[in-house]
Amino acid sequence: MSAPIRIVVLNGPNTNLYGLDPNGPYGTLTIDDISERCRACAANLGATLEFRQSNHEGVLVDWLQAARTEADGIIINAGSLSYSSIAILDALSAAALPAIQVHVSNVFKRENFRHYSPLSSVVTGCIIGLGPEGYEMAVAALIARLKSS
Amino acid sequence: MSAPIRIVVLNGPNTNLYGLDPNGPYGTLTIDDISERCRACAANLGATLEFRQSNHEGVLVDWLQAARTEADGIIINAGSLSYSSIAILDALSAAALPAIQVHVSNVFKRENFRHYSPLSSVVTGCIIGLGPEGYEMAVAALIARLKSS
Amino acid sequence: MSAPIRIVVLNGPNTNLYGLDPNGPYGTLTIDDISERCRACAANLGATLEFRQSNHEGVLVDWLQAARTEADGIIINAGSLSYSSIAILDALSAAALPAIQVHVSNVFKRENFRHYSPLSSVVTGCIIGLGPEGYEMAVAALIARLKSS
Amino acid sequence: MSAPIRIVVLNGPNTNLYGLDPNGPYGTLTIDDISERCRACAANLGATLEFRQSNHEGVLVDWLQAARTEADGIIINAGSLSYSSIAILDALSAAALPAIQVHVSNVFKRENFRHYSPLSSVVTGCIIGLGPEGYEMAVAALIARLKSS
Amino acid sequence: MSAPIRIVVLNGPNTNLYGLDPNGPYGTLTIDDISERCRACAANLGATLEFRQSNHEGVLVDWLQAARTEADGIIINAGSLSYSSIAILDALSAAALPAIQVHVSNVFKRENFRHYSPLSSVVTGCIIGLGPEGYEMAVAALIARLKSS
Amino acid sequence: MSAPIRIVVLNGPNTNLYGLDPNGPYGTLTIDDISERCRACAANLGATLEFRQSNHEGVLVDWLQAARTEADGIIINAGSLSYSSIAILDALSAAALPAIQVHVSNVFKRENFRHYSPLSSVVTGCIIGLGPEGYEMAVAALIARLKSS
Amino acid sequence: MSAPIRIVVLNGPNTNLYGLDPNGPYGTLTIDDISERCRACAANLGATLEFRQSNHEGVLVDWLQAARTEADGIIINAGSLSYSSIAILDALSAAALPAIQVHVSNVFKRENFRHYSPLSSVVTGCIIGLGPEGYEMAVAALIARLKSS
Amino acid sequence: MSAPIRIVVLNGPNTNLYGLDPNGPYGTLTIDDISERCRACAANLGATLEFRQSNHEGVLVDWLQAARTEADGIIINAGSLSYSSIAILDALSAAALPAIQVHVSNVFKRENFRHYSPLSSVVTGCIIGLGPEGYEMAVAALIARLKSS
Amino acid sequence: MSAPIRIVVLNGPNTNLYGLDPNGPYGTLTIDDISERCRACAANLGATLEFRQSNHEGVLVDWLQAARTEADGIIINAGSLSYSSIAILDALSAAALPAIQVHVSNVFKRENFRHYSPLSSVVTGCIIGLGPEGYEMAVAALIARLKSS
Amino acid sequence: MSAPIRIVVLNGPNTNLYGLDPNGPYGTLTIDDISERCRACAANLGATLEFRQSNHEGVLVDWLQAARTEADGIIINAGSLSYSSIAILDALSAAALPAIQVHVSNVFKRENFRHYSPLSSVVTGCIIGLGPEGYEMAVAALIARLKSS
Amino acid sequence: MSAPIRIVVLNGPNTNLYGLDPNGPYGTLTIDDISERCRACAANLGATLEFRQSNHEGVLVDWLQAARTEADGIIINAGSLSYSSIAILDALSAAALPAIQVHVSNVFKRENFRHYSPLSSVVTGCIIGLGPEGYEMAVAALIARLKSS
Amino acid sequence: MSAPIRIVVLNGPNTNLYGLDPNGPYGTLTIDDISERCRACAANLGATLEFRQSNHEGVLVDWLQAARTEADGIIINAGSLSYSSIAILDALSAAALPAIQVHVSNVFKRENFRHYSPLSSVVTGCIIGLGPEGYEMAVAALIARLKSS
Repeated sequence: MSAPIRIVVLNGPNTNLYGLDPNGPYGTLTIDDISERCRACAANLGATLEFRQSNHEGVLVDWLQAARTEADGIIINAGSLSYSSIAILDALSAAALPAIQVHVSNVFKRENFRHYSPLSSVVTGCIIGLGPEGYEMAVAALIARLKSS
Repeated sequence: MSAPIRIVVLNGPNTNLYGLDPNGPYGTLTIDDISERCRACAANLGATLEFRQSNHEGVLVDWLQAARTEADGIIINAGSLSYSSIAILDALSAAALPAIQVHVSNVFKRENFRHYSPLSSVVTGCIIGLGPEGYEMAVAALIARLKSS
Repeated sequence: MSAPIRIVVLNGPNTNLYGLDPNGPYGTLTIDDISERCRACAANLGATLEFRQSNHEGVLVDWLQAARTEADGIIINAGSLSYSSIAILDALSAAALPAIQVHVSNVFKRENFRHYSPLSSVVTGCIIGLGPEGYEMAVAALIARLKSS
Repeated sequence: MSAPIRIVVLNGPNTNLYGLDPNGPYGTLTIDDISERCRACAANLGATLEFRQSNHEGVLVDWLQAARTEADGIIINAGSLSYSSIAILDALSAAALPAIQVHVSNVFKRENFRHYSPLSSVVTGCIIGLGPEGYEMAVAALIARLKSS
Repeated sequence: MSAPIRIVVLNGPNTNLYGLDPNGPYGTLTIDDISERCRACAANLGATLEFRQSNHEGVLVDWLQAARTEADGIIINAGSLSYSSIAILDALSAAALPAIQVHVSNVFKRENFRHYSPLSSVVTGCIIGLGPEGYEMAVAALIARLKSS
Repeated sequence: MSAPIRIVVLNGPNTNLYGLDPNGPYGTLTIDDISERCRACAANLGATLEFRQSNHEGVLVDWLQAARTEADGIIINAGSLSYSSIAILDALSAAALPAIQVHVSNVFKRENFRHYSPLSSVVTGCIIGLGPEGYEMAVAALIARLKSS
Repeated sequence: MSAPIRIVVLNGPNTNLYGLDPNGPYGTLTIDDISERCRACAANLGATLEFRQSNHEGVLVDWLQAARTEADGIIINAGSLSYSSIAILDALSAAALPAIQVHVSNVFKRENFRHYSPLSSVVTGCIIGLGPEGYEMAVAALIARLKSS
Repeated sequence: MSAPIRIVVLNGPNTNLYGLDPNGPYGTLTIDDISERCRACAANLGATLEFRQSNHEGVLVDWLQAARTEADGIIINAGSLSYSSIAILDALSAAALPAIQVHVSNVFKRENFRHYSPLSSVVTGCIIGLGPEGYEMAVAALIARLKSS
Repeated sequence: MSAPIRIVVLNGPNTNLYGLDPNGPYGTLTIDDISERCRACAANLGATLEFRQSNHEGVLVDWLQAARTEADGIIINAGSLSYSSIAILDALSAAALPAIQVHVSNVFKRENFRHYSPLSSVVTGCIIGLGPEGYEMAVAALIARLKSS
Repeated sequence: MSAPIRIVVLNGPNTNLYGLDPNGPYGTLTIDDISERCRACAANLGATLEFRQSNHEGVLVDWLQAARTEADGIIINAGSLSYSSIAILDALSAAALPAIQVHVSNVFKRENFRHYSPLSSVVTGCIIGLGPEGYEMAVAALIARLKSS
Repeated sequence: MSAPIRIVVLNGPNTNLYGLDPNGPYGTLTIDDISERCRACAANLGATLEFRQSNHEGVLVDWLQAARTEADGIIINAGSLSYSSIAILDALSAAALPAIQVHVSNVFKRENFRHYSPLSSVVTGCIIGLGPEGYEMAVAALIARLKSS
Repeated sequence: MSAPIRIVVLNGPNTNLYGLDPNGPYGTLTIDDISERCRACAANLGATLEFRQSNHEGVLVDWLQAARTEADGIIINAGSLSYSSIAILDALSAAALPAIQVHVSNVFKRENFRHYSPLSSVVTGCIIGLGPEGYEMAVAALIARLKSS
């Protein structure tokens, strides 16, 4: 595959607050910091990367539908919608692309309703609780997987 | 009632992918094909028909609220939102119009979470699993019901 | 397929009371009225139609087993047995024919135990809450499906 | 109401074993003994009484449907079907007559699945655990109620 | 047993409102009317009868404990405490006397939490939904049972 | 209505400990402080107000029964009994008066068993988590509602 | 704090239908009437008040995120989203401001799924079932609390 | 015991379809093949054997009641009724004979509702998933047990 | 602490029946025997001890509230109220004293509803199933704990 | 297949107590008696048989892993681990051999937690409640199945 | 019984960490400290005592099986296995000896899964939450019970 | 910290089968291949690494207890014990070290009982479904975290 690998990173509601609350469970990096690091990581590995955030479920669904033809792999942190959105589940499933789900905090240490995300059953794998670094790990793992397939 | 009967057909998240995945559970007709067939069917029966699709719950709620004054009957396939949306439930209930719910696939053959739709308790009836033809059956049945009332 | 399509319509316990209680949830057509309309509808479409009713689960199972060789498609309203009969479920499944389930009333507006019918997972599709007209819609849809297959 | 009051007493599966097992929870009166006592009790109070038993759900449904026009009140001990039959529930409900449910043994001292009978929600009242005498109490109470209405 | 049979009838919270609300589910007899009828019924059958009412769980427990030595049989309508009181359950069980539980209304037609009373598993039997007459039926049945034992 | 409006404020178990534990979830006002403020608030609005507290369920039921004829509206904080008492539920329901339920602390931030109070379904409305001030808000709202009805 | 207190009142899906259905559970005041009353109430108490409504979950999340820096307190009636939105829960929690939740109707008298709102666990308190007046009570209580803190 | 041992083998709904569907979970032996094998096996061991099948619950109950006096042991495969029939449970329990339950397929590999059969708690033992051979194993084991008792 | 340690032992409904039923699960010591032993044990260890019993939940709450200022430690056997009383839970929690819960019988060998007592989560520890001797063990352990703190 | 068939019989915790408690539910044969009978039975049928017992879950997993290459079929009675061990489930599934599960007692007559064994879903079939003879039946059935495959 | 009483004290997984974490819920005594105290206590009362610890379920089962013949009474703190081990439950039950279960911490104040131990239903009694002293209390109580039996 | 970082990688039951079944969900690398890769990765980053596997829960607990003093960080794939072991949970929690849980396959695509691992709530984070590569990602992430702390 000679064309560069195309990755899209989608972020859901309230992920745009990362880094703003120094006492919160999400560390001190902002969503823009994370975006920059992901892009750099992808560039190093010869891939292009789109990084997007929205608080609107419908917008996330629109982006996932677009990814069907515009991307080779998906990284998704659906934020507050991780635990309940069937619309994102269906769109992610229809995209039929390799995908990695990222949770910045360890959701298993938080409220019960965060312990299960229906999205997890339609992605390739999950990286949970390893902080903003989880994004870069996901970018590297996804590109490696796409290169070897 | 001498003014023509006005039908609105509302479609929710991911229904705009119908027909794009030949192996999926939804057949080969696209949402545009279905729209056209519905319109033709309504025209044959002397009714007007608005056909709309959105991936955004809020937009569907807006349309349902508008239907209170702009339509005589509703056909709804809320797509991925069928199984959980209280906002659509409340808007549909507030519209207080004859309504038919359509599922293209037989939801009872799929995951458990698709076996119950709260919307079903506020519509007149449901047509489930009979493919895109279910839309046309709904259009005909709704117009017949409105004519006889 | 030049031989005429053969449809069997099976009705379960208490459906023979339809139309007898003007305040009930089932409208004013009797089971005989419905039978006649179904037959006429099938005749118009060039098909033959057997219409049967029984209050006995075993009889319905016998009829379903017979349908395996004597019919091309099944329409079933299992009445009060819709919500619990594994015997009908297994016989319907063994018949392995296109089948449409009809509920005259909108079961989702009634008691919780009527919200799920195990039969729904082994039929092609369901028509729910659209009154006795649902039978005729089922007849037409089933014949169309059999003609096109 | 000058015509004599007509009572029907219906008994379900396994009630015909009453009195046969001296160690069982049902006492030593047979179903025929009970029938005779009920008839005598009704005759004393100027009423006629039909006493029937069947192990077949469908037969009980047929009898309940007949009761709609042939009886003024119903006494029912559905036996083993008390705990699950929706068909009897619907037929009893459609009969729309005063009705008393009898359990010979105290079902609340037995297995959990005997603690709730859906039929109880559509009868006038229940007499539970008072032995075969419960039948006579039901006959007297039902006739008194019918006379005073 | 030559000494007269001694019956105690215990009534729990809110049963003292019977007959005060003509639209309520409890008929028009007051608790005093019921008391008088029970006493008359017992006197006719050669038994003595104590009739008591309290809104206090502790008082009901005290009375049940006293009944161990002062009564031969118990009739109990625990009113609002029927559905949850383990204290009454334990006291009734410790009394170890024949006992009949009365519900004036048909609890199976009301809220779910009234469908099961733990007390029912430690009494001889129950009379449910037959109105204030249920008390007199209980008095007669209990005396008959005590005479024959 | 020219006679002054009569309000009764009923308080259940452990509400008499309010203000005694400075670290507890109930603030620093004692039940007597609250009583005085409620009385002053009612007097300002031309109403009379009875303020009572008991740790005994039976006493609360007695007071609610008395309120049927001695009060025009009820404010109730059933304290520890809020979450389970059917006896208070039934007495409150039988009173058939406008009523406001007050929780001083935000019960939704505490143990799960405090998240639902059956009483809430039979009162006009609830004021939750707004501290002892919630009582005064309830007094004012109840009087306003009674004046306008 | 010499700068005027800033309140934001946020309203979710279908609250814009208030007052349009005279038979509905929400009274006759429209959302604009309520807005005007809230503004007047705040002005009287020397505070400024923003009143907003949207049928879109994402928009409500955006507004809650903005409130982190643009408001001193929040009043929220999330409408149909009250019962399920984790996105609103997380945004409200991240805002970390005093907040009062308002339900116009008594949700405890309606369907079971309206009996619990996850939002209730992250607000200061709730006012439920006291009609549109509940908004003004919330405005006054929130300003009082902000002034005294 | 010098009289020959008498075994009855009872088969419920849909077992008469065994062997008709080569892709089904029940193998290629028909119910008649199984009957013949059971009879041969019993004859070899000096016992007589009645083999019966019905799709009617009531008929199975009748046969179980007859077995009380006409058989020494029971083998039962209640087919589709295995998972729900209380009537068969009660009749089997009343028969009070050694009994072995047979499932031809491994029910634990199928739908959840087939994982528990109430009948299993009143038989001596179960043979599950070992194919039609399970019948012969049951015949041999039951006769051995009867001979040694 | 030179003043003598003050212990209060509180006993709930039906504990006053201990020792009266020789076949019951509570042994042959009466509540007075237990009281005397507890007092002797405390006196030996230089502590004073109040021993009380009531069948009334409200009285137990009153005593627990009094213990806040009149005792240094609590031993409680809430009897039949152990399994459900939130009022006792709240009062015990408000007392904020070292406390030991005693069950005379092994509740884990009895009905399911006796397997969990909400009180257990707010006491220091529990002694279960060790007979009336459990009281004396509790007295000794509580005094030792208070002396060493 | 000319090499002799190799069977391994694995027994879990507490099966080594069989036969030691004459009142227990497991009969009078010891695990050694059973071992000997199984070996004899296999020898008669021309097969070799390893019979092992351990109270250690890890040891059973090791043996199941070894069976992958050292056996042609497995008989397993996991004893007390039958009801919960995922480790045994996974090892049994990985072995991918014909397997029969044996329960000596009828687990459906015992505590609820013995009614379902996850192992049952990965074995060929089960023999339950037929005593130690169940082992020999399993040996014979397994060898017959292996010979015919 | 002139031979000295023999007690075995068995400790399960992670109890060997007691006293190592000064902030943990288990106090500052190590498992060796506890062992020494138990031995001293038993010696004072003329009994011998074996004190053992293992992290292996199978080893604990072996020890319990050995105790059948080598001990007169058992004290068990199964540590992390308290909440799930059926193997220990069965072995403890088979031992058929007086037994006391000890939990050092108050398990009812910890995670839900620690609130119920199946072992509790087969021991004589439990001492919970009274710290390492609970062991000595158990030793004394068990010896007293064995001496008096 | 100048001493090299010490990592221990622990593997539970059935992980030693990785790579042996080419059709299984675990890829083609054996546990030895994975061990070697982990060691190389750690060496590159200047850390030492112990890699261990056992099918015995007790052994894993022993190793975790040893890690308290012999390691700086833990990587754990508890295999089949991931979903139920409280003993491993408690030992992992007592170790109080940074820890990463690895699942080789995406457990959310498998049976329900694999969707939640109690261990996840006491580790730093999880890497799920990313194949054997997940181990190396965990090694790198854990060393990076230890270096920066």
